[in-house]
Amino acid sequence: MSAAELIELWRGDLREGVHRGHAVIADRNGIVEAWGDPAAIIFPRSSCKMIQALPLIESGAADAANLGTEQLALTCASHNGAAMHVGRVGTWLEGLGLGEADLRCGSHMPRDPDEARRLTCSEEAPCQLHNNCSGKHAGFLTLNRHLGAGSEYVEMDHPIQQAIRQATAEVCASEIAGWGIDGCSAPNFAVPLQGLAHAMASFATPDSDARGAAMTRLTQAMVTHPELVAGEGRACTNLMRAMGGRVAVKTGAEAVFIAILPEMGLGIALKIEDGGTRAAEAAITALLVHLGALEAEHPVVSELLTGPQRNWRGRETGGLRLSPGFPI
Amino acid sequence: MSAAELIELWRGDLREGVHRGHAVIADRNGIVEAWGDPAAIIFPRSSCKMIQALPLIESGAADAANLGTEQLALTCASHNGAAMHVGRVGTWLEGLGLGEADLRCGSHMPRDPDEARRLTCSEEAPCQLHNNCSGKHAGFLTLNRHLGAGSEYVEMDHPIQQAIRQATAEVCASEIAGWGIDGCSAPNFAVPLQGLAHAMASFATPDSDARGAAMTRLTQAMVTHPELVAGEGRACTNLMRAMGGRVAVKTGAEAVFIAILPEMGLGIALKIEDGGTRAAEAAITALLVHLGALEAEHPVVSELLTGPQRNWRGRETGGLRLSPGFPI
Repeated sequence: MSAAELIELWRGDLREGVHRGHAVIADRNGIVEAWGDPAAIIFPRSSCKMIQALPLIESGAADAANLGTEQLALTCASHNGAAMHVGRVGTWLEGLGLGEADLRCGSHMPRDPDEARRLTCSEEAPCQLHNNCSGKHAGFLTLNRHLGAGSEYVEMDHPIQQAIRQATAEVCASEIAGWGIDGCSAPNFAVPLQGLAHAMASFATPDSDARGAAMTRLTQAMVTHPELVAGEGRACTNLMRAMGGRVAVKTGAEAVFIAILPEMGLGIALKIEDGGTRAAEAAITALLVHLGALEAEHPVVSELLTGPQRNWRGRETGGLRLSPGFPI
Repeated sequence: MSAAELIELWRGDLREGVHRGHAVIADRNGIVEAWGDPAAIIFPRSSCKMIQALPLIESGAADAANLGTEQLALTCASHNGAAMHVGRVGTWLEGLGLGEADLRCGSHMPRDPDEARRLTCSEEAPCQLHNNCSGKHAGFLTLNRHLGAGSEYVEMDHPIQQAIRQATAEVCASEIAGWGIDGCSAPNFAVPLQGLAHAMASFATPDSDARGAAMTRLTQAMVTHPELVAGEGRACTNLMRAMGGRVAVKTGAEAVFIAILPEMGLGIALKIEDGGTRAAEAAITALLVHLGALEAEHPVVSELLTGPQRNWRGRETGGLRLSPGFPI
């Protein structure tokens, strides 16, 4: 099966472009609905940070370090590098007796406009705390101290990455199809999209064991602190706020999006094949409305999907539309 | 015919994504080579600025205002809003007895990092001169003064836009399939991709008439001032520099790219259906190498197509690849 047309861009009365991809809604028993190829092999990228955080909790490292819900939300975050993110990760590392130099994620200019302006205008370089993955890496360092393992914790043969590989295969109930190096230097494991959706359905309906308890804590941390998972103006934050703590969502680079819907016992995973973020955001919004988890009239739906696009003079130029057959 | 797979994104040993689209190489007699659907209806967006500039020259307005090659290059530009662009457009408008407030393109933060930093750190808002289309609009205002027409020169029924509509249909040898409002508020006319490629072949092998002379002046202006057509670090500028004035290229929003190859008598037009700029840049690079217009070993080829992608720590993560069958 090939990718399905999911999201279109219209200008005037003509279709200017189209984004194709794959999407799966699953429960613990299997696929509930799918578009495109549910077996498509994808890199989850940052959409699987809650899976990457499972060994942190299951090992006892999170409790040994007294991690709270803010820190667990940050382990699942692709944050904006705003002061609220950078400060919390810095304090967390200090509490471990570690510092910014122990991170292995690299540095990039933060998305947060205030922090980016502060750095730019003071000619200060961003540091690794600004990296959108610094919370995940603080989680790695917390687990690493607990394990007493080596400092190069993003190497493929490091115990942390081996534990994540095993957890990924287990919760996705899938063979690992391959791996790549992510933007933050951590390995990222490729799985079938339906495997990622299965994992999210498991987070939605966790077993009553240690793994299930870890899943519940991570989902709860995400929905409790939507501003820590991404930041002001971001789709993840705005969607979680709009759903009032009932649904966790997370994006990943190259247009991956997942959702965890505990009340419905469902998980969603989708991938736009061209990596277009606007389409991934529009598609997850459409699926959340389709399932009744998100009000069609909520402003975030207009912002990410139905609202008109306007140009620099405020003129309406067109907008996104759902392709025929997606979701219905 | 549907879109063809053209450019792939690889991570590790797996294909992470793919961009589909349409591409046409044409001479004055028709299609020489094509991928995807040559009849696909597309919005050329900014890739057709040299067509939009034809009435400026053909009317005699450019000569009446003594426009030089720098100004003609700016009419074809999607510039970075650097000091060199903003200053030249401002001086041009002054010479017409006009000013920034006469523009109808709207304002946006410039791409040029130095100018963006200056504005951000002085808390100065960008003005309409910073709009990447301000040179095109200065051309519109030059023609408008010549015609003595109304101030709202971006309205569809304004004589300038009607002249552009007619010129577009003629040089593309195509019916106008529809129109939309561009980011800069000017109308943009939809045409078949093969029509746009035909127009570029005409620019490459102009007739010995007034239109042909106008085409030659615009192509020459673009290749003479590649830094004015885009700016430092931009694909258009770097590609034109790499080809040493022998080929003009121009991008348009939503992943359109054209090339004018006078020595070969060829025109190229391509459109990536998902609007992915990285794929449009990679695809035009591939076609220019394919035709022998661009050295495969030139650094710009590595930059836009073959070079590895590296993450924030400088680690190689993957890169772009040509899909099988594109170009060969």
